[in-house]
Amino acid sequence: MGFNQTEEQALVIGIDGGGSKCRATIYAADDSVLGTGVAGRANPLYGLTHTFDSISRATELALQDAGLKAGDGKTMVAGVGLAGVNVAHLYQAIKAWQHPFAEMYVTTDLHTACIGAHKGGDGAVIITGTGSCGYAHVGEQSLSLGGHGFALGDKGSGAWLGLQAAQQVLLDLDGFGPATQLTERLLEHFKVNDAMGIVEHLAGKSSGCYATLARTVLSCAQAQDEVAKAIVVEGAEYISALAHKLFEIHPPRFSMIGGLAEPLAPWLDKRVVDKISPILAPPELGAAYFARQQLGFSS
Amino acid sequence: MGFNQTEEQALVIGIDGGGSKCRATIYAADDSVLGTGVAGRANPLYGLTHTFDSISRATELALQDAGLKAGDGKTMVAGVGLAGVNVAHLYQAIKAWQHPFAEMYVTTDLHTACIGAHKGGDGAVIITGTGSCGYAHVGEQSLSLGGHGFALGDKGSGAWLGLQAAQQVLLDLDGFGPATQLTERLLEHFKVNDAMGIVEHLAGKSSGCYATLARTVLSCAQAQDEVAKAIVVEGAEYISALAHKLFEIHPPRFSMIGGLAEPLAPWLDKRVVDKISPILAPPELGAAYFARQQLGFSS
Repeated sequence: MGFNQTEEQALVIGIDGGGSKCRATIYAADDSVLGTGVAGRANPLYGLTHTFDSISRATELALQDAGLKAGDGKTMVAGVGLAGVNVAHLYQAIKAWQHPFAEMYVTTDLHTACIGAHKGGDGAVIITGTGSCGYAHVGEQSLSLGGHGFALGDKGSGAWLGLQAAQQVLLDLDGFGPATQLTERLLEHFKVNDAMGIVEHLAGKSSGCYATLARTVLSCAQAQDEVAKAIVVEGAEYISALAHKLFEIHPPRFSMIGGLAEPLAPWLDKRVVDKISPILAPPELGAAYFARQQLGFSS
Repeated sequence: MGFNQTEEQALVIGIDGGGSKCRATIYAADDSVLGTGVAGRANPLYGLTHTFDSISRATELALQDAGLKAGDGKTMVAGVGLAGVNVAHLYQAIKAWQHPFAEMYVTTDLHTACIGAHKGGDGAVIITGTGSCGYAHVGEQSLSLGGHGFALGDKGSGAWLGLQAAQQVLLDLDGFGPATQLTERLLEHFKVNDAMGIVEHLAGKSSGCYATLARTVLSCAQAQDEVAKAIVVEGAEYISALAHKLFEIHPPRFSMIGGLAEPLAPWLDKRVVDKISPILAPPELGAAYFARQQLGFSS
């Protein structure tokens, strides 16, 4: 593929960093995708070097995918959404980075997800995947809730459901009950016979590992297991409360994003579910819109 | 210092591995201490190489402290208490280690703590420090409860109290209440102004870091803060339940060990507190007794 100078200057790279992967997409002025690259985790809270490496790697792969040269990023503007950039010293460190772009605009991953979901318009989003958090942007107002990470917060997320389940199962196996179907399911899941077997598979593991248990918790809750139900109800109540707090600033649109958004829906407050609209664009395009907004282009 | 061959052969090294440090003590036949060494964490669940390094280092320091040569460990029998050795593959890996002793006998850190607490006799112990767990040994019967580690279990431990407090404070700061004195105390503790400041200090940190918050939680509970009280009451109820389950096999003696044993006592079931006896010897001496028992010596 070849581009003339004007076309290349109009290209924007949208980058969505996250706790498990980093995705970079190169967009033309009409939002069409020229190339995409995916690299490892990019969460500044867990390491800046790794974050920068993942952004660079995802960008290289996207350039390659678009048939461009490795150095061509230097001619493009990048929009980047990252967790933890609301922490002042991390934001400063990221701003100081010798990035491989003509210009780089950084904001929270929640902000870019929200811009994407509503194609640049005002609105609110809740993300419930491995973690959970909420964000709303209306005029000059914005509101960011939750997203404190595993195991500090992220109630109602996949990792939170998995951790609660493992805690209950370990209490049950020690005879501190209450008895729950989750015990047999988790022993099967890890192919072990006792509490230490479960501990061995979970001790020191990442949130992603705990999140693999979320479907089991939801299926036991659906099968009316009281312990699993109590966990899912508590998580869903938090997500509903998160939504109602976002609604207080009257976002005109609301979307739910992430792998748990759909399976959690039956457990959420009906007034929340009724307001859900589909997302209009992915977070990387939201990041690209953000960069264009910063440049003064319309989105 | 100098020892003749017979004296040296009677020396036993008692080693207590743990999540934050590893302590080795060289004992003469009359239990007098010849030298002590302390090294870093020795928890096989979080890494075997590190565990072996810590055991070797603590031993070297103990030999040095006793005025012995680095290689003299090779002439001595060691008793070692370690977490996680009830996991089959870890036990096998530890048994296969080319250890620096004449002979090495390994059991759980709970077992050696219990042998120490009751000077070789039957009894029960609960450990509540950074983590929490319970163990009882009566005749041929033994019972091991809890000790599943942060953040899976260890209810009522310092790390658990700290994590619960941080979770409640982050909910409070997001407006999901209930309001609690803990919020101001934790913001002061970390010298920060908001939720992200707390997250920055705790994200990905070890159980020891969370446990530094335990005293704050206990003092807020004592000052009748409802949120702190609910946390401490839930933790103390678990520790009391742990004790009652250990009492089911009728241990003739019961001790509580660890930095939280004393401050938690006012919150425990009075029937549990009434049964507490002081420990008679430290876990390292328990480990030395264990080695002598395995050798067929009386302790």
